[in-house]
Amino acid sequence: MGDHSIDRLLEDSALGIGEFELIDRFFLRGASRARAPESVLLGIGDDAALLRVPDGSDLVAAVDTIVAGRHFLFEADARSIGHRALAVNLSDLAAMGAYPAWATLALTLPSADPVWLEGFAAGLWELADRSGVALVGGDTTGGPLTVSLQLLGHVPRGTAVLRSGARPGDLLAVTGTLGDAGAGLWLAQAREAALGSGRADKPPYDRLLADELIRRFEYPEPRVQFGLAARGIASAAMDVSDGLVGDLPKLAAASQVSAKVDVDRLPLSRAMRELASPQQARDWALAAGDDYELLLALPPERFGQLAEAAARSGLALTAIGEVGPGSGVTWVLNGQQFDPGASGYDHFR
Amino acid sequence: MGDHSIDRLLEDSALGIGEFELIDRFFLRGASRARAPESVLLGIGDDAALLRVPDGSDLVAAVDTIVAGRHFLFEADARSIGHRALAVNLSDLAAMGAYPAWATLALTLPSADPVWLEGFAAGLWELADRSGVALVGGDTTGGPLTVSLQLLGHVPRGTAVLRSGARPGDLLAVTGTLGDAGAGLWLAQAREAALGSGRADKPPYDRLLADELIRRFEYPEPRVQFGLAARGIASAAMDVSDGLVGDLPKLAAASQVSAKVDVDRLPLSRAMRELASPQQARDWALAAGDDYELLLALPPERFGQLAEAAARSGLALTAIGEVGPGSGVTWVLNGQQFDPGASGYDHFR
Repeated sequence: MGDHSIDRLLEDSALGIGEFELIDRFFLRGASRARAPESVLLGIGDDAALLRVPDGSDLVAAVDTIVAGRHFLFEADARSIGHRALAVNLSDLAAMGAYPAWATLALTLPSADPVWLEGFAAGLWELADRSGVALVGGDTTGGPLTVSLQLLGHVPRGTAVLRSGARPGDLLAVTGTLGDAGAGLWLAQAREAALGSGRADKPPYDRLLADELIRRFEYPEPRVQFGLAARGIASAAMDVSDGLVGDLPKLAAASQVSAKVDVDRLPLSRAMRELASPQQARDWALAAGDDYELLLALPPERFGQLAEAAARSGLALTAIGEVGPGSGVTWVLNGQQFDPGASGYDHFR
Repeated sequence: MGDHSIDRLLEDSALGIGEFELIDRFFLRGASRARAPESVLLGIGDDAALLRVPDGSDLVAAVDTIVAGRHFLFEADARSIGHRALAVNLSDLAAMGAYPAWATLALTLPSADPVWLEGFAAGLWELADRSGVALVGGDTTGGPLTVSLQLLGHVPRGTAVLRSGARPGDLLAVTGTLGDAGAGLWLAQAREAALGSGRADKPPYDRLLADELIRRFEYPEPRVQFGLAARGIASAAMDVSDGLVGDLPKLAAASQVSAKVDVDRLPLSRAMRELASPQQARDWALAAGDDYELLLALPPERFGQLAEAAARSGLALTAIGEVGPGSGVTWVLNGQQFDPGASGYDHFR
């Protein structure tokens, strides 16, 4: 058939499999495992998805794109890419205290490799099922590997936790531990380099602890349950995707407040403390990003209540500083003002 | 600052401009020109957007990705790419009879060229303003040019027009004219090839008519107003993005009906009739795609009412066939059954 659509040239040649066949085979599945299957009136297969937002709720929408070589390593496991595409968006909704509900996926692929697609879909579905998310729309095109996922959710009207709600006198707190993903990325790259060079020597650090950190980079765990519990307690929240040094100034600016952080109090994992020098651990915790923990501001008298909510999600909650009037962020180390930009890296022990 | 996030390496180097600076400069704008600015409780700038779906409405969500060299020519004008990214999604919502409301944009760029970005944003905003759409979220990353846009809208509960509603006895109808975008793509490619070879000879066809067809490819006009008017009249609808030969079987399958099309009745533009041979015009109208007209099924007695609605949007509505029981699509030309796959192209006159 004469076919001048440049779009279809791709579907028939570059991918070697039609768009619809691909969606059917890997991504078409009922919404039965979603939290609210009845909210999906129409999923994949029509021009658009038709969804029912619960009465009295507002809609929450996030979108994040991850690109090979930018947000994950070229050699990353397909399963971890599927996981990450959803996780980074779940983290955004968690920071708002929203219920995640529906996702649409725009997948650009250099080729339709069934093994890769199976792994990707498995990673995506594992987290989607666990988070109650239904995949309701998709679009696949040929091109360099790019995964753009849009996540929709809802929150009872007027209860979303914003970046702009921090008030002078609030405590600053973070969930979990910081810097692990940065260390994990470094270790994953070191592992790849060693494999690439054919060196089989034992790395100079504990393999199991290193795997823990690599897993924190490859499979970030969004704090969805805790985010829901923080609604009504936290005055402000955001997720720490770009590192505390990058993200806290955004929260302070949105709230029109200043912030002071005790760098000694940043929570570090046991694996990090065992494997990295204190200085390097601190640098990663401050600046490496990709941890997808939540940063919150809250009145001091509610700290116990929020820490209990965190514990119910298996998470530590650590107070790391305070909110003040004015603007700007101050970092304090050993009682001295500290410039996170001035520090450098040293080697793994 | 030590910074191990691969994401940020990009923002600081590959794009040469930070993600937030880029969003601020080109895409951050109030929702004041949107149809319902008060529905945007929180736009760009927090972890996610916060939106209010009107009471008694369902949410409609579409996503479409366009990739350089696949969905638009590498040398395409940035303005037309911005237009197209939104237009293809508006067309999906039009096919559902939904009100478009909010968009999120995931933009992957090889570099942050301000001239390109200004053109892209201008094309996007022109159509967004005209359609009442607010841009509420965005994400920019470095990489090969890929534009993924998610469009959200709403429709009064139970009134969305689906692909699955066609019934035996219904008429099949299309808006506007078919094949123009396919002809336009051919002409745009011919023009580029002529420019590339340095040939300045006059093309063997009317320049103004050719420009009309090229414009139909570069600036597809989604049938949003007509789609809204078709709600409650049409029994089924979809947009013709992949060409009638590709799309009609999907509508027939979704509705579990058969369809018969009189190929002689396919509506052709004056420019097409002047510039292309009848056989080539027919092939483009059947199979070229990218027209973004609407294909509808409707009870015959409602045709007049729907044609009036189309006329109010400045569109022709043309009956092209009928819906029957059973399954499959039959194409009829000059009273004979016709196989669209067997036809070929001949040259422009």
